[in-house]
Amino acid sequence: MDGNQMPAAAALTARYGAGAEPKAGPWNDTLALLLSHRSVRGLGPDPVPDGTLEALVAAAQSAATSSNLQTWSVIAVDKPEVRAELATIAGNQKHIEICPIFLVFLADVSRNGRLADEAGVELAGLPYLESFLVAAIDAALAAQNAVVAAESLGLSTVYIGALRNDVGRVAELLGLPPGAAPVFGLCIGHARPGREGEVKPRLPQSAVLHRETYDADDSAIRAAYDPRMEAFSRRQEMAADNWTQRVIARLGTMTALRGRDKLKAAIIALGFPLR
Amino acid sequence: MDGNQMPAAAALTARYGAGAEPKAGPWNDTLALLLSHRSVRGLGPDPVPDGTLEALVAAAQSAATSSNLQTWSVIAVDKPEVRAELATIAGNQKHIEICPIFLVFLADVSRNGRLADEAGVELAGLPYLESFLVAAIDAALAAQNAVVAAESLGLSTVYIGALRNDVGRVAELLGLPPGAAPVFGLCIGHARPGREGEVKPRLPQSAVLHRETYDADDSAIRAAYDPRMEAFSRRQEMAADNWTQRVIARLGTMTALRGRDKLKAAIIALGFPLR
Repeated sequence: MDGNQMPAAAALTARYGAGAEPKAGPWNDTLALLLSHRSVRGLGPDPVPDGTLEALVAAAQSAATSSNLQTWSVIAVDKPEVRAELATIAGNQKHIEICPIFLVFLADVSRNGRLADEAGVELAGLPYLESFLVAAIDAALAAQNAVVAAESLGLSTVYIGALRNDVGRVAELLGLPPGAAPVFGLCIGHARPGREGEVKPRLPQSAVLHRETYDADDSAIRAAYDPRMEAFSRRQEMAADNWTQRVIARLGTMTALRGRDKLKAAIIALGFPLR
Repeated sequence: MDGNQMPAAAALTARYGAGAEPKAGPWNDTLALLLSHRSVRGLGPDPVPDGTLEALVAAAQSAATSSNLQTWSVIAVDKPEVRAELATIAGNQKHIEICPIFLVFLADVSRNGRLADEAGVELAGLPYLESFLVAAIDAALAAQNAVVAAESLGLSTVYIGALRNDVGRVAELLGLPPGAAPVFGLCIGHARPGREGEVKPRLPQSAVLHRETYDADDSAIRAAYDPRMEAFSRRQEMAADNWTQRVIARLGTMTALRGRDKLKAAIIALGFPLR
């Protein structure tokens, strides 16, 4: 872990913006590590130490998994030609080709299915939305542990949700059996100098954390967040959009979905009936 | 963080079983913390330090979120009568009533919806399975950061997937707006003395980690894992079932789904059309 950890006050200000910090509480190096997360697309090609992949997967497997079903898998993809096609599917994200470790996380009930086949049993529960959801959540919990582990080792990461632009083709490239579907990718490597980025401000806790019941009265909270995201965007030399504009740009049009309106059909075709 | 961390070899043996460890790699206190995870149902009622909830939510909000859409929320439930009904829904899991912090994580696109309503824009992307999946994954990444943060503070946790037995009733109890759905609960607190449990062995890495393409030839790997899970079960004084038996018990019958065959209809009713 980075030995040069931020104190609580500075870390909370970086995460929420000055004046928008939640109440300070307990603090330690792990909290400092977690709060310092940035998704880094500016990854260099430098290799990681031997055994790093195995350490990250050990961390991933240590996350909770629903009823110990372990309904996820991960594929480490190294072949340049496969990386190149995955990068294209993801909308030309070059870091997929450059980073030393590229992982594709799978919602995977196929292993449970093989086990049942051998035992001559049918798994009545498998065809339901519940099983796909359990598998996707299992994959996400595992991946997040891998991310925390990677960052503790001084590495940087970025999730690649855009593999869902064409999960059918991703499944074909990776030779997935029925009952396994890609849910996202993950690039891991060293941030290029000067490309570590800045901690991105999030919504104030009052927008996300509710007490007893849901409080939908968040108009003023969102209005106060918009200029913080706009200032962040300007500092990071991206378009100076505020949060409202970004959400609308991302979800407002069918074009922005980049084919993910067909995700349901593709997931069903991969062996999750989603009943 | 617990200052008394296991060395790599011991932690890998605890997680995989003697003789089934992956190649050793880099190691640090964070990896030791992650590998030491146990889900603990034997939680006591002792309160946590002031500010703990806020620290855990700050960690949760620091996890990656797809396109910074922040499509998740969390509700901290304290009211005993609500805790009691949630415990009943979850199949009488008493720890939900006892633990000092009980959280319900939500897949939540309602905030993005309110933002668009105010701007007079329709979010064409919202009705798709993709949006529900993004929101569920966002919630899972956030929750896992909260779990890591809690464990770093010496607390124990257990996820409560069984809230999905009746998400409609949970949503009613928590006053959720359309576009917000419970995906799981999380108990956080102090393990009762002697109830910390033992690290649960997972499948060998070779079953979960694939190289370049998926390798479905895992029959021998599963066969070797079965006795390790059986021995674990016996030591923990649960039924001495192996993994094969447990998977079949959990997924083999409609009864074991405990109403989650109706999850799809319930999620749609909560405002996720899953197109």
